[in-house]
Amino acid sequence: MIIHVPATSANLGPGFDSLGLALDLNNQITIKPSDYLTISIKGEGSNRPKLKTNNQFVSIFYNFYIKLIGKRDNFRFEFQNNIPFSRGLGSSSAVIVAAIASAYHLAEVKLKKDSILNKALFYEPHPDNIAPAVHGGFTASMAVKNEMVITQKKDIPSYLKAVMVIPNKPMSTQKSRSKMSRSVTMQKTVFNLSHSAVLTAAFFNEDWKTLHSASQDKLHQHVRMSAMRELFEVQKIALLNGALMSTLSGSGSSFFNMTYEDDAQSLKKTLQEYFPYFRVEIYDFNNIGYDIIG
Amino acid sequence: MIIHVPATSANLGPGFDSLGLALDLNNQITIKPSDYLTISIKGEGSNRPKLKTNNQFVSIFYNFYIKLIGKRDNFRFEFQNNIPFSRGLGSSSAVIVAAIASAYHLAEVKLKKDSILNKALFYEPHPDNIAPAVHGGFTASMAVKNEMVITQKKDIPSYLKAVMVIPNKPMSTQKSRSKMSRSVTMQKTVFNLSHSAVLTAAFFNEDWKTLHSASQDKLHQHVRMSAMRELFEVQKIALLNGALMSTLSGSGSSFFNMTYEDDAQSLKKTLQEYFPYFRVEIYDFNNIGYDIIG
Repeated sequence: MIIHVPATSANLGPGFDSLGLALDLNNQITIKPSDYLTISIKGEGSNRPKLKTNNQFVSIFYNFYIKLIGKRDNFRFEFQNNIPFSRGLGSSSAVIVAAIASAYHLAEVKLKKDSILNKALFYEPHPDNIAPAVHGGFTASMAVKNEMVITQKKDIPSYLKAVMVIPNKPMSTQKSRSKMSRSVTMQKTVFNLSHSAVLTAAFFNEDWKTLHSASQDKLHQHVRMSAMRELFEVQKIALLNGALMSTLSGSGSSFFNMTYEDDAQSLKKTLQEYFPYFRVEIYDFNNIGYDIIG
Repeated sequence: MIIHVPATSANLGPGFDSLGLALDLNNQITIKPSDYLTISIKGEGSNRPKLKTNNQFVSIFYNFYIKLIGKRDNFRFEFQNNIPFSRGLGSSSAVIVAAIASAYHLAEVKLKKDSILNKALFYEPHPDNIAPAVHGGFTASMAVKNEMVITQKKDIPSYLKAVMVIPNKPMSTQKSRSKMSRSVTMQKTVFNLSHSAVLTAAFFNEDWKTLHSASQDKLHQHVRMSAMRELFEVQKIALLNGALMSTLSGSGSSFFNMTYEDDAQSLKKTLQEYFPYFRVEIYDFNNIGYDIIG
């Protein structure tokens, strides 16, 4: 079997731990019956031998597979990793989601995508990346008692593109999260709550001119971006050059910019000129989520 | 001229100061040229002589009318007030919105509904009631710098009804607001933020089975409902008897219950039996907002 699983951009400004969307930048994992457990890695991580002996995908896969089948069959796992690690592009959620979905598929136990998503929550307690990795599109999600994800999806039209700025350095999610304060003013709460609701509604109404103001955040971006101050410039320049919205991708370090198709190339060019040491890439959106072939 | 303006139910659980919807329970104000300023009041407030000498509608109306026309023409104002006062049904927002819209209409200055809404924000700093009073339907709203409201609207299908429980006592908005804490944990913030986003998306997706869980709140309902403890029972009984969601209406004291048309009568009957001293009424939703005739 072959599974494709998309990169994701979470938070989208105000929607901390809730909003996300899927990019058409996919990891591909091919799993074949084999006499021995073997792993091959191409792309991201191919230069890290540790990933062959201590592989999160394989470990999660067997957690489910052995429970479902009652024995440990051997497989050959071929990873074509296209999602950069530790850049706020949901590489870890992609691994979790793809591993669980593959285990059920190979065990020939049918499970709805919603149930795969619920199981992924055990490994990744915030639903903002796993929900779009499962379903694709724009998603608004909430966790119920750390057991169930409730998510609502909206397809993103193909005339919109993501212009991603991918720095040459990672930002640690845990470090970045620990810097955030544990209590917030009611004013900031209402700010983010109202902006998340309006941003969500604007995606459903396809009212793209509203994204600029509705994607403002007062909870997490400032403290996180302070660890890599060029990101303030990235945001400013993107919004002045055709970005409908420009938000820190997950906990960073990447930046997500949404544009009309016609503006994508010129925005990419401008950002690449200003930040020659960062990668700038244009991606379509993925409205499918993970996808199993064969 | 005649203007109709709807009652509104704000917050809808998690969407504190942001989410709202309009009920087809309308105040009607008739304004006619007259030699003297005269006021007649039928319905709510007809037994309060003070409302004839110190009338908020008339005061706001003239604030705008005199600026637009340059003089103070006299009118006869005939109020047919159907929205109960101080019950969390947006009576005050209805007055503000209708007064501003009427002044522009009689001054023959055309103004879009969005601009009427922005002007209403000066009198009512939270957009959650004024937005649905202006536009009707379900609305997600945010205020920008206390000057502008950005709102997104979704029509509510006619097969849904509101079963309102209207207590015999008011709850003061100011008193109720002052009891709330000024800082909240990040956990509660994420709870309400994610639930507001999912609730909004569920209205757009018309995924009514999601309303029950997405309408939970951790910011304001508990402290407000503690001032009238029967409301906890109202909510419990409503959710057990066909309510798709059951939330405190604005700052109370009314309770908003949404049901399918087929369940509305039986829910009303059940609630009326449990709470014989409260009014229980079934309303359609209003998808138009304020409406000027003639």
